Amino acid sequence: MSAPTTPGSAVADLLGLVALGELLAFERMAADARLAPDLRRRAALGEMAAAEIASYRRLADRLTALGVRPEDAMAPYVEALQAYHDSTQPRDWAEAVTKAYVGDAITDDFLRAITTALDEPDRCLVLDVLHESRYAEFAAAEIRSAVDADPRVAHRLSMWARRLVGEALSQANRVAAADRGALTALIAQGERVDVQALFRQLTAAHTQRMLAAGLNN
Amino acid sequence: MSAPTTPGSAVADLLGLVALGELLAFERMAADARLAPDLRRRAALGEMAAAEIASYRRLADRLTALGVRPEDAMAPYVEALQAYHDSTQPRDWAEAVTKAYVGDAITDDFLRAITTALDEPDRCLVLDVLHESRYAEFAAAEIRSAVDADPRVAHRLSMWARRLVGEALSQANRVAAADRGALTALIAQGERVDVQALFRQLTAAHTQRMLAAGLNN
Repeated sequence: MSAPTTPGSAVADLLGLVALGELLAFERMAADARLAPDLRRRAALGEMAAAEIASYRRLADRLTALGVRPEDAMAPYVEALQAYHDSTQPRDWAEAVTKAYVGDAITDDFLRAITTALDEPDRCLVLDVLHESRYAEFAAAEIRSAVDADPRVAHRLSMWARRLVGEALSQANRVAAADRGALTALIAQGERVDVQALFRQLTAAHTQRMLAAGLNN
Repeated sequence: MSAPTTPGSAVADLLGLVALGELLAFERMAADARLAPDLRRRAALGEMAAAEIASYRRLADRLTALGVRPEDAMAPYVEALQAYHDSTQPRDWAEAVTKAYVGDAITDDFLRAITTALDEPDRCLVLDVLHESRYAEFAAAEIRSAVDADPRVAHRLSMWARRLVGEALSQANRVAAADRGALTALIAQGERVDVQALFRQLTAAHTQRMLAAGLNN
């Protein structure tokens, strides 16, 4: 990245997108915690949420160090990310943990895919904000236990997860369409990724994860 | 504290009360962040919230180490603390930051007052979960800037802060009344505190803080 880092530069765009994703994931998970059947689970989803905003802070600090106001870097993505969350409000605890599971995992796949296009220290930073596996394990265990308690739930959660991915990809397309060019150019610059291939890859990984949690894709 | 630490023991009760306070403060602040006028402030309240749940985790871990399930230690206080938050839902950003400011400060005053009654390591733990002053400074600055923008806001926020303290003390009385005896005994055991003196002291400190933020009590 020898281009100057200003709002609209590829790195600022990318960090802004990831930062906003973390900020909104934090808010929604924190809100969804109210759906928990008990205080232990309520706190557990709250802690997953807190991990998101810790990552937000690191990304925002990096943007500031680059001379970019975090809110300027995030602004172009507010509508699409907000639309994703507004259209995927969980109705119960099983849907809430499924959303956290699916959302974190797709975010991580996306982050891993784009690291090849980044220089240090941004590459390490993005790898560092990958979600801790204990959160995914907690969410997958909750999904399995919901399915164990009532096998019919598997079908409903499978449909729900499909909708989550559909909405995520639809909003991702909207981000790509609205992009000022730098971001998609950066992503396409990665060794193995063009945007369509990235989408296919994210979808395949999602299928694997659904199976791991006892759901069909 | 030579008495065994079980649910219902003074230390478990106290840590449970504080842990639940942190958990609910987290949830409400995270929810109130949606009232922020911009992404920067939205993230700032989110980060104040995340600090609460980090403290929750430390208290919950200590309870677990003492052989007490955190949810058991918290259970007696759910109704009173939930009632406090339900009866004090901020209607705008200025009310949200005022609530965070007042709530954190009263919590800290309470924590400082009870440390005299605690042995190590619980004493240090409770001192460690005191809120960082940068959060209070952020909230006080937001209150002052709301008042600067519209001086009439000072009166409304003063009334609001008075209501917050009133509701907090009312629910605290309810906690004390419902207490199984161990908690109030522990508090009264502190060097300088009986429960009524503690309330007076909290109220006096609150008045000082209101003045510091440009509000009347």
